[in-house]
Amino acid sequence: MRATEFLLTTEKETPADAVVVSHQLMMRSGMIRKLAAGLYTWMPVGLRTLRKVEAIVREEMNKAGAQEVLMPAVQPAELWEETGRWFQYGGELLRVKDRHNRDFCIGPTHEEVITDLARNNISSYRQLPLNLYQIQTKFRDETRPRFGVMRAREFIMKDAYSFHTSEESLQQTYDKMHAAYTAIFNRLGLDFRPVLADTGSIGGAKSHEFHVLASSGEDDIAFSTDSDYAANVELAEAVAPAGERPAATAVLTKVSTPAATSIDDVAAFFKVDASQVLKAIVVRGAHTDEKAEGEPAPVVLFLRGDHELNEIKAEKIPGVAAPLQFASDAEIEAIGGVTGFVGPQGLQAKCYVDRSAAHMADFICGANDTDAHFSGFNWERDAALPEVRDLRNVVAGDPSPCGKGTLEIKRGIEVGHIFQLGTKYSESMNATVLDENGKTRTMIMGCYGIGVSRVVAAAIEQNHDDNGIIWPDAIAPFQVGIVPMGYQKSEAVTKATDELYEQLTAAGFEVYLDDRDKKTSPGVKFADMELIGIPHRVVVSDRGLEAGKLEYAARRDGVKHEIALADIVAHLQSQVQC
Amino acid sequence: MRATEFLLTTEKETPADAVVVSHQLMMRSGMIRKLAAGLYTWMPVGLRTLRKVEAIVREEMNKAGAQEVLMPAVQPAELWEETGRWFQYGGELLRVKDRHNRDFCIGPTHEEVITDLARNNISSYRQLPLNLYQIQTKFRDETRPRFGVMRAREFIMKDAYSFHTSEESLQQTYDKMHAAYTAIFNRLGLDFRPVLADTGSIGGAKSHEFHVLASSGEDDIAFSTDSDYAANVELAEAVAPAGERPAATAVLTKVSTPAATSIDDVAAFFKVDASQVLKAIVVRGAHTDEKAEGEPAPVVLFLRGDHELNEIKAEKIPGVAAPLQFASDAEIEAIGGVTGFVGPQGLQAKCYVDRSAAHMADFICGANDTDAHFSGFNWERDAALPEVRDLRNVVAGDPSPCGKGTLEIKRGIEVGHIFQLGTKYSESMNATVLDENGKTRTMIMGCYGIGVSRVVAAAIEQNHDDNGIIWPDAIAPFQVGIVPMGYQKSEAVTKATDELYEQLTAAGFEVYLDDRDKKTSPGVKFADMELIGIPHRVVVSDRGLEAGKLEYAARRDGVKHEIALADIVAHLQSQVQC
Repeated sequence: MRATEFLLTTEKETPADAVVVSHQLMMRSGMIRKLAAGLYTWMPVGLRTLRKVEAIVREEMNKAGAQEVLMPAVQPAELWEETGRWFQYGGELLRVKDRHNRDFCIGPTHEEVITDLARNNISSYRQLPLNLYQIQTKFRDETRPRFGVMRAREFIMKDAYSFHTSEESLQQTYDKMHAAYTAIFNRLGLDFRPVLADTGSIGGAKSHEFHVLASSGEDDIAFSTDSDYAANVELAEAVAPAGERPAATAVLTKVSTPAATSIDDVAAFFKVDASQVLKAIVVRGAHTDEKAEGEPAPVVLFLRGDHELNEIKAEKIPGVAAPLQFASDAEIEAIGGVTGFVGPQGLQAKCYVDRSAAHMADFICGANDTDAHFSGFNWERDAALPEVRDLRNVVAGDPSPCGKGTLEIKRGIEVGHIFQLGTKYSESMNATVLDENGKTRTMIMGCYGIGVSRVVAAAIEQNHDDNGIIWPDAIAPFQVGIVPMGYQKSEAVTKATDELYEQLTAAGFEVYLDDRDKKTSPGVKFADMELIGIPHRVVVSDRGLEAGKLEYAARRDGVKHEIALADIVAHLQSQVQC
Repeated sequence: MRATEFLLTTEKETPADAVVVSHQLMMRSGMIRKLAAGLYTWMPVGLRTLRKVEAIVREEMNKAGAQEVLMPAVQPAELWEETGRWFQYGGELLRVKDRHNRDFCIGPTHEEVITDLARNNISSYRQLPLNLYQIQTKFRDETRPRFGVMRAREFIMKDAYSFHTSEESLQQTYDKMHAAYTAIFNRLGLDFRPVLADTGSIGGAKSHEFHVLASSGEDDIAFSTDSDYAANVELAEAVAPAGERPAATAVLTKVSTPAATSIDDVAAFFKVDASQVLKAIVVRGAHTDEKAEGEPAPVVLFLRGDHELNEIKAEKIPGVAAPLQFASDAEIEAIGGVTGFVGPQGLQAKCYVDRSAAHMADFICGANDTDAHFSGFNWERDAALPEVRDLRNVVAGDPSPCGKGTLEIKRGIEVGHIFQLGTKYSESMNATVLDENGKTRTMIMGCYGIGVSRVVAAAIEQNHDDNGIIWPDAIAPFQVGIVPMGYQKSEAVTKATDELYEQLTAAGFEVYLDDRDKKTSPGVKFADMELIGIPHRVVVSDRGLEAGKLEYAARRDGVKHEIALADIVAHLQSQVQC
C-alpha cells in the first residue's frame, strides 16, 4: 500500500477523553474515529488489524470443530422474557420498539437466540455435541463508555455456544476451547494467561478467563512461579500458613488508643507491622432459613491487618448477605462492638477468621471499647478461635494453592472467557433432545467468548512505547514499512524504492510505502511509521544505495542494521514472524 | 467437511410464509433460520456462501482502489437532523433511545456517518479522490418484511462512498465502480445487466442499477439486442417511430359506442387492434409558477391504446402533479371531456401526445360526448397535434434508443446501485476541503451499494430447478459433493471414499462428504446434495470401484460420466470454475 493511496490521518495531540494508552494511540494513529460516546468507526489502518484478529480467531475455531453461523443483532424480547433476562438485565440492554410496537433489543450476547436455534433445529443426541460460533457486532449500553474500544458500546465479539447431553462431553469441548484460545492468543503474539475465574452470578460450574498481561489491566491475576497455575485474584485460594500457630508468649494488656481506628493508626501507635494487627470487618447477615423472621444477625470476619478481604469469598459464607454490605455503627453496637475497636473478646455474633489470621499469636486487636485495643492477644487463650475460612485476597509471595512455587500477581485485561453454563438457558427455554433411549433430555451448554475488538486495544496496552504502538507481526496492519529519504527528489531513491516495494509485495509481504513527496519531512515519516507500529522498517537513502545497502530496523528494539540490497527479502523473511 | 461434523438441517416441507423460490430453497436447504419477522440466522451452509460473496466484493473493491472501513450500526440522531432525514425518513428508520434518553437509529444506510467522517478527517483537495467502503449489517424496519433475505429487516450491505472536488473526478470513480461491479457479478457467475436507472427522489445526476436477471424479478429491464444498452423500463427512452406520419385517408365519423369506455371495449367494438385506438389519460396539474393561485388545471396525455403510461416520465412534465394523480370525473367535465370518452377535439386543457401516438393516422378516439367515439380521426386535420413527448413504457420490439437493434424486456432483481450524489449530503453537513488555491469547496460525492445478502437470494432465483439450488461454482458452499453408496457398510466403498475425500481436499477443493451411515438412504443423500446445490457430485459405489471408476455429474445438467479413479482430480480441475 502506498501512503498516497491510503487514508491515514495521524494526530500529534492526544484527545482529552483518552485516558488509557491504547485509546490514546488508537486515536493518534488514526485506527479509530469517534462517532459518539462509545461508538467508533474503524479506519483503514485499524480495520486491517481487526480483520487479522478475526481471521486468526476464525481459523482456530474452525480447527477446533466449531461451526460458524451469523445471528441477527436485533433480538425479539419474547426470548429474553423466557429466560427472565428481559427484566433482570439492567440499562445496559438497549431496548427498542419496532414500527409495530413490538419489543426488541440490540443483543449484548446471544444465549437466548442460540438456545432458540438449538431447540428448533436439534432434536436428537446424534446431532450432539455441537459448537456454534459467530463473529458479530454487539451492543451494550454502558452508563459511562470509556477507554475507546476497550469499553465501547458497540463492539465485536466472537461468541460460541456448545450443546451436549453429558457433563463429560461438555468438559471435552471446554478443553478443546481452552486449547483453541491458547492457540489463538499465542498466534496473536500476546503474553497472556488462562486463569481460573469466578462463575459469579451467571451460575455454572467452571470458568476460565483469558487475560492479556499489561500493567494497565483492570484485573489482578495470581500465578505460580513454578507451575501453570493462574487464577483471578477474586478466586485464587489463599492456603493456610505451614506449620503450627506459634505459642502465646505475651501478656494480654488493654491499651488506651485514642482515635486509632484504622489498621495503619494502630500499627503506628504500637510501632508494629500491620501483619501484627487483627482486622475486624462486620458485615450484614442473611437468613439461611427461608422461614426465619426479623433482621438477620451481622457476621464478623477477622483478617490479618495487612490482608484484604476477598468479597467473593466472603459472599459465599452461609449467613452473609450478598452482595456484601457493611454493618452500621448501631448494628455493631448491638453485638457488643464499637466501630473502629472491634475485637474477638466478648462479641455476640457469629465470627469467621481467615486462615492466616488464625495463625497469629501475640497480636493486637480491638477491645470492643471506645479508644481501646488489646496487645499480646492470643487465640484460644483470650478468645475462642472462630471458624477458620479462606477470606482474603492472595498476595505476592503466598504459597501457590497448586502446591508448587509461590504466587506472583500481575495485572491483566480480560479478552476471553470460557464457561460451563450447564442448563441455565436450556432449562428455562426447554431446549431438549431425545437420548439413546428415546427419553427427553435438557441440553447442557457451554459458552466461549473473545472480545475481538478489545483484543486490539489489549495488544496495544501490552505492546507500545513512548513513540507509539509496537505490533506483534501477526496483527500488524502492515508487516514492513518503507521510508525513502528523498522520494521523487532523488531519482536513484525513487527508482530503488519502487523496485523494493514491488519486490517485497511480490514476496508476499504486506508493505506500507510512505511515498509522500518532499513536502513531508523524513522526521514526520519516521514518526508516523513508529506511531502506527509497523514492526519492520526499511530505509532507502542515496548514501545507502551508493554502498548497495538498505537500512533495516525492527520497531521493537530500533537497532539499525545495514542489509545488502540483494539480501533484503531473505533478511525480512527471517525477521517477520507469520 | 464431513456431514457428520456439520450442522445441516434440510427440510422436505416448504414453510408457509415462503412465497418466492429463493426463500423456499434457503429455508429447505437449511441456509437460514427465521428468528422473527425479517430477522434470519445464517446457518453454516448458508454462511459459507454469504462469506464467498463478501470476499469477492471485498477483493474487487480493493482492486478498484476503495478502502475498507467499518462504521457503527448505531448512529446518533444529530447527524440525521443535519441532513433533515431524521424527519423525512419514515417508519423504516428504526429509532431508539439510549439509557441517557438520547436519540439514535440503527442505520439503514451511512451517508450521514461517512460525511461526518469525511468533514472531520479530510481537509485538503490533496486527500481526494477518496473512496471508502464497508461490508456491514444494516437495519430497515420494513412494514411487511418478506421474501426471506431478499427483503429482510436486518441485512448485509456493501456500501461505498466517494469524495471529490470535481465532477470529472466523480465520473472517474463512478466508472471504476461500474467496472468493479461488472467484475464482481461476473466472478459471482451471475447473468446480470448494469442498467440506467432513475435518480428518483435522492437527487443527483447519474445512476446505474445492477440487476440479476430472473423471471421472478421485481423490475422490468429493457435492453438492446445489438448493443450494451440496458435501462430500467422506468427510464428507457421510447424513440419516435421512423418516417413520416401516414397521410389521412379515412373520413371522420362520429359513432355511437354505448358503454365502451375502455381501450379493449372500443377496439372490440370497432374490430381493430388496440394500437388503432387513442388512449387519453387526464391527470392533475401543478402550478409551475409559485405565485399562481387557485386549482391548477388538469393535463391530458394521449398514448397509443396498446401502450402504457410511464409515470416517471409523466411526472417530469412541467405542470403535472408528482406523484401522479388521476383527475376526477368533475375535473374532466370542467375541461370539456367525458370520462371514458375523452378525445383531442375541443378539449380545453394543455395536452401532450406520446411520440408513437403522434404517428397515428385514421385512428379511433373519444368524442368528448357520452357514449360516442370518432373513427377516421387524424391529427392536424381533426385536431391540432399536441406537444409531442416520450410518455410511454418501452415494449419488446421497440427500436433501442442507442440506435442499434431492438429492445428486449427481461425481469431483474436489483442487487447493486451506483449513484452520483453530488453535494446533497456534503452541502447540508458542510463537508468542505480547501482547493489548490486555498478556497473552501464543498465535496462532491458518489455512493455505491451492493446488497450482499440479497445477492445470495438473487443467485438462487436465477439458478435453481425443481430439486433445489444450482450454485455457480464461485459461491457454492462446497464445490464438490461425495455420495458414497454404502458408507460404513461396504469396506471398499468406505476406504475409497475416505481416500477420495483426503485426495480432493489436498488438491484444494472444498468437499462435502455425506458420510452418514446406512440409516440414511442414498435417496436422501442425493436429494440433500441437489437441494443444497453442490455443483459437482462424485458417487462412490462397489460396482464402480470394481471397474476402477467413479461417477461424476454436474448439478446443472445431471449427466452422469464414468471417470477412472486416477483421473478424478484432473477431471474436477477441468470442471470446477474458480
